Amino acid sequence: MAGNSHPVAIPEATVARLPLYLRSLQDVANESIATISSVRLADMAGVNAAKVRKDLSYFGSYGTRGVGYDVKYLLVQIRNVLGLTHDWPCVIVGLGNLGQALAKYGGFSERGFVIAGLVDADPDKAGTKVNGIVVSPLEELGKLVRKFEISIGVISTPAGAAQDVADRMVEAGISSILNFAPTVLSCPPGVSIRKVDLASELQILSFYQERRTPAKEQATG
Amino acid sequence: MAGNSHPVAIPEATVARLPLYLRSLQDVANESIATISSVRLADMAGVNAAKVRKDLSYFGSYGTRGVGYDVKYLLVQIRNVLGLTHDWPCVIVGLGNLGQALAKYGGFSERGFVIAGLVDADPDKAGTKVNGIVVSPLEELGKLVRKFEISIGVISTPAGAAQDVADRMVEAGISSILNFAPTVLSCPPGVSIRKVDLASELQILSFYQERRTPAKEQATG
Repeated sequence: MAGNSHPVAIPEATVARLPLYLRSLQDVANESIATISSVRLADMAGVNAAKVRKDLSYFGSYGTRGVGYDVKYLLVQIRNVLGLTHDWPCVIVGLGNLGQALAKYGGFSERGFVIAGLVDADPDKAGTKVNGIVVSPLEELGKLVRKFEISIGVISTPAGAAQDVADRMVEAGISSILNFAPTVLSCPPGVSIRKVDLASELQILSFYQERRTPAKEQATG
Repeated sequence: MAGNSHPVAIPEATVARLPLYLRSLQDVANESIATISSVRLADMAGVNAAKVRKDLSYFGSYGTRGVGYDVKYLLVQIRNVLGLTHDWPCVIVGLGNLGQALAKYGGFSERGFVIAGLVDADPDKAGTKVNGIVVSPLEELGKLVRKFEISIGVISTPAGAAQDVADRMVEAGISSILNFAPTVLSCPPGVSIRKVDLASELQILSFYQERRTPAKEQATG
């Protein structure tokens, strides 16, 4: 038993690809297809087949030569590994345009991430409802987290407020944070942070776009 | 001259970190600080110092030993490299909750990504305004792209509609796409695609969260 208490560590990059496989497998399952080759799965997920095989091998899925992977079984395995066998109550802090959109976004609850609480520091917003959920003041974050056993916090505040909100989340017992504020958060070890910076994504696109616009000179030329 | 026409290729991972450095340098510049060490910049951007030095060396920035990098000069360099010396007109296709939030999101235009057009396939939405911009029908995408010289397209449609929209964008001459729809797009070579899948980010967090919840058994045990 002791030897099993530390299962094989799954690399971060593999973890990040599991949602892609999950989505692809769900599409395939919806078409009542029973097995899938690593080549097909790789194609659907937009990665290469060797990577798919390696990624799935981390949790003991090897498929059957000439047949592929059993779609239903692999779905169950990936859902288990990702912890998607139960719902995850979430709280969104910061209800500007982005926060409100996230609160209304159907794609979260569909996939088991239920918005259990909404919080905003603006006293005028407290007591109003977004998508049927009452907005609580920032002071009640801890109470909400305990009441709904929230372990995932979403930060959609302006950059200047994000660290304070992250500190309050960690203090309240949240250990997984999805940060949309354009700033780097510092949190104690053991807290997982994922960040989504929308404008950065556009800046990365503009890098490549700049290089293909024929009229432009290369800045490094 | 011919030798300079192909500048040193900057690795994709480096390009993805440049927006982080840019943001950190902007914060430092706002405090009127003239120079910054790689250690400090690394700390602000949430990467390690050796990576910062390597990343910046790709476009010839080496800093000065014991002094660091000139903040203003490095800002100019990174803005140049990222193609941020001029505005980039963008179009958003798909004006559900997320698309509307993106249309209203101040962080895009602040950083030079000006929303020049909004498009939705729903005839009831055509002609309405979001954030002061008229929503055009899908059929007018090409016209909009030509009129405003749009090179960046944002897709915030449901998954099922995204590939058709991407095809129409590419046909209209767009070669950079930011995709929020939870699906893998297939586009011709030469088209850059960045994807943001909000629910996937939460699934990655739930992976780590599941592993730290003490009451749960490891699925792989």
